Amino acid sequence: MVLHRSHVEGFRRLTKVGVAQRRFLKAVEDSQVGSELRPISEAAGRVLEADLIARRGLPSNNLSIVDGFAVRSLDLQRISSNPVVLKQIGESIPGKPCSLLVRRRQTVAVATGSIVPRGADSVAPIEDVRFLRGSRILFSESVRSGQNIVLRGEDVSRGQVVLRKGACLRPQDLGLLKAMGIERVSLLARPRVAVISTGSELVETFHDASSGQTVDINRQILSSLVTQAGGVPVDLGIVKDRKASIVNALRKAVECSDLVLVSGGSSVGERDLIPSCVDLLGKPGMLVHGVAMRPSMPTGLAVVNGTPIISLPGFPVSAMFAFLVFGRCMICRLGGKPIVDRTVRAVLAVPVKGVKGFRTFIRVILRKTSKGLFAEPVKSQKSSVLMSMVRAEGYITIPEGVTEIPAGHSVEVTLFT
Amino acid sequence: MVLHRSHVEGFRRLTKVGVAQRRFLKAVEDSQVGSELRPISEAAGRVLEADLIARRGLPSNNLSIVDGFAVRSLDLQRISSNPVVLKQIGESIPGKPCSLLVRRRQTVAVATGSIVPRGADSVAPIEDVRFLRGSRILFSESVRSGQNIVLRGEDVSRGQVVLRKGACLRPQDLGLLKAMGIERVSLLARPRVAVISTGSELVETFHDASSGQTVDINRQILSSLVTQAGGVPVDLGIVKDRKASIVNALRKAVECSDLVLVSGGSSVGERDLIPSCVDLLGKPGMLVHGVAMRPSMPTGLAVVNGTPIISLPGFPVSAMFAFLVFGRCMICRLGGKPIVDRTVRAVLAVPVKGVKGFRTFIRVILRKTSKGLFAEPVKSQKSSVLMSMVRAEGYITIPEGVTEIPAGHSVEVTLFT
Repeated sequence: MVLHRSHVEGFRRLTKVGVAQRRFLKAVEDSQVGSELRPISEAAGRVLEADLIARRGLPSNNLSIVDGFAVRSLDLQRISSNPVVLKQIGESIPGKPCSLLVRRRQTVAVATGSIVPRGADSVAPIEDVRFLRGSRILFSESVRSGQNIVLRGEDVSRGQVVLRKGACLRPQDLGLLKAMGIERVSLLARPRVAVISTGSELVETFHDASSGQTVDINRQILSSLVTQAGGVPVDLGIVKDRKASIVNALRKAVECSDLVLVSGGSSVGERDLIPSCVDLLGKPGMLVHGVAMRPSMPTGLAVVNGTPIISLPGFPVSAMFAFLVFGRCMICRLGGKPIVDRTVRAVLAVPVKGVKGFRTFIRVILRKTSKGLFAEPVKSQKSSVLMSMVRAEGYITIPEGVTEIPAGHSVEVTLFT
Repeated sequence: MVLHRSHVEGFRRLTKVGVAQRRFLKAVEDSQVGSELRPISEAAGRVLEADLIARRGLPSNNLSIVDGFAVRSLDLQRISSNPVVLKQIGESIPGKPCSLLVRRRQTVAVATGSIVPRGADSVAPIEDVRFLRGSRILFSESVRSGQNIVLRGEDVSRGQVVLRKGACLRPQDLGLLKAMGIERVSLLARPRVAVISTGSELVETFHDASSGQTVDINRQILSSLVTQAGGVPVDLGIVKDRKASIVNALRKAVECSDLVLVSGGSSVGERDLIPSCVDLLGKPGMLVHGVAMRPSMPTGLAVVNGTPIISLPGFPVSAMFAFLVFGRCMICRLGGKPIVDRTVRAVLAVPVKGVKGFRTFIRVILRKTSKGLFAEPVKSQKSSVLMSMVRAEGYITIPEGVTEIPAGHSVEVTLFT
């Protein structure tokens, strides 16, 4: 028999989303991905494993930040009463510094980015000088000591912490590393995330499908979501609804990954084998089964020998929301990254209803009008309608205590990316 | 002589940022990257080249969205007065549909996701039935025709446009393609972006550098920025400040790419060779030279034989802002993607000054306090101080007409990513 009574009673105790998230994250508090040494060309967007300390200062010389003339500022001190004429003794261009010492009443032409020669303590910009005969330069504005110079060590001083452990490396950070002569950097590994689909009806592609069979799309969707969240998806294929096959697949998954996503069979029917299989694998097993959210109520959260497992509902819409609520935060937690949502505020075009006690996610389309940005629910909110996710630009979240948000209300829309 | 008079007068005519952006984008209105057929596993985040039309409907059968019993809804019509008992004649599970026809007073057990057998038009959820002896099922709630069923073609109907030309493919979109049996998809090519650094003082790595030489970090920074913006960086190395070398490098760059980024030599000094070299290459040449922005004023924008070229200042900070203002929008334009900035609103902690007539970018740090999020300028705003970009979490933009924003003002911070 495909159905029996257990189903009816199974989800009487649902866990609130917030409670479930905290319980899940707390159970892996001590888990840690490893680290790896990578060249900086591969480090964009990755997370630093330890504080990074400057082994040398930057720049390594005083540099001019304008095209102009390096001078001793004292020489131009009395310029207000009379212009000052200095003798040009050389020039400094980037890559070809001037080795002369600048003495009193002498000057050296310097180009932007070139070394300011010894003796000089400032640079007068070329706009403020006149060229006279015989390499003589006339100055008509005074300069402060240090003016138009970036001093040796001003950018980075030796021994300074330039980037903190946990920093997510951006283009400028990589530039800084390169400038300091650091070519490889120790990074947190990206969490490996096993992705399994279960269901005897599932086939790989449309061409394999006979009547009643379904193309598995959850692995495709979840793998893309994992990559977006900074994880590395490990595709472990389709598994039939047989206890032994599922236990084997999960055991392999737990061994080879930092997080397991298994979709299908997550509810409480006869064919919903995941929760009982997970409990066979190790301790503590299922932490949460059934979450007070719509969609994705039949979601299970487990930990087996330190590896977190998410049992996601089989409908792709539900699998996505279960991932967005529990998978992303776990990948970010394991990978040491902050969770970054893209959100916009919009005006609700029509009222939307929540379910008391449930956190409800409403898929919406955005419409720009002369009166501002409006959010409008997509027509079908069914978990079985994938187009509701394809049409939607994002979703609004109705908290547990709210049963209706009226039209005209300002809401935060979390954008799909 | 490293310096001469032209420098002084060169930038008397600065172009406003908005004007420069429009002129630059308009000059490549007709430019178009090619398209390419790729497997959907490689299509995440990529842009559809043409509308995508469903060649078949989804689902291909009526499916149950609950565990329950498929019935003819007419059989349960009079249930309000008396419960109804139907005879169970079979079961339908995903992958193993029931081929029987459901006649009057008959029912078939169906699992979530399984095909609803012919004859039945609705599904009563298992919670609403009782199991009696002899395969008899007692129903106590009526059902509407279509209830708990996703109808054949309800998700996607045949011939429907499911994704529009220009759509940026998200995980759910890839899932939909897979469900429809589409394995390869025609995408806009990612713009190829040539990245060149010029400067006779530049060396590849710290270990190559002698006194007065500088490690080139602009190619590293710009390549990362290009990748973030959806382009493919093509590294064309370092070029010395010699006209012939620069012309050769630019010619090669224009031939092999959709956009050229060349940093260094962008100003009006003796060593600033890029603008004149660009004009030698082809028409229309330089469109804009000198932009009313701080930093990055000595930025040049050109088009040569249909290929846009950005001449970026050599200081990494300036090169970055020139890229963020002109490079990103060009890559997005060529690649058919919208520009997506991540922004937050924050309260300005101290007053900031703009330069009249200039668009000024102020690098800021964000501080979370009990009174909200505060934005505070990083100490040094010099173009020569890379740490100002490393410390900053983002920047605020002071428009051309504004010379000061007072402390306490709410400002929009564009986040570095």
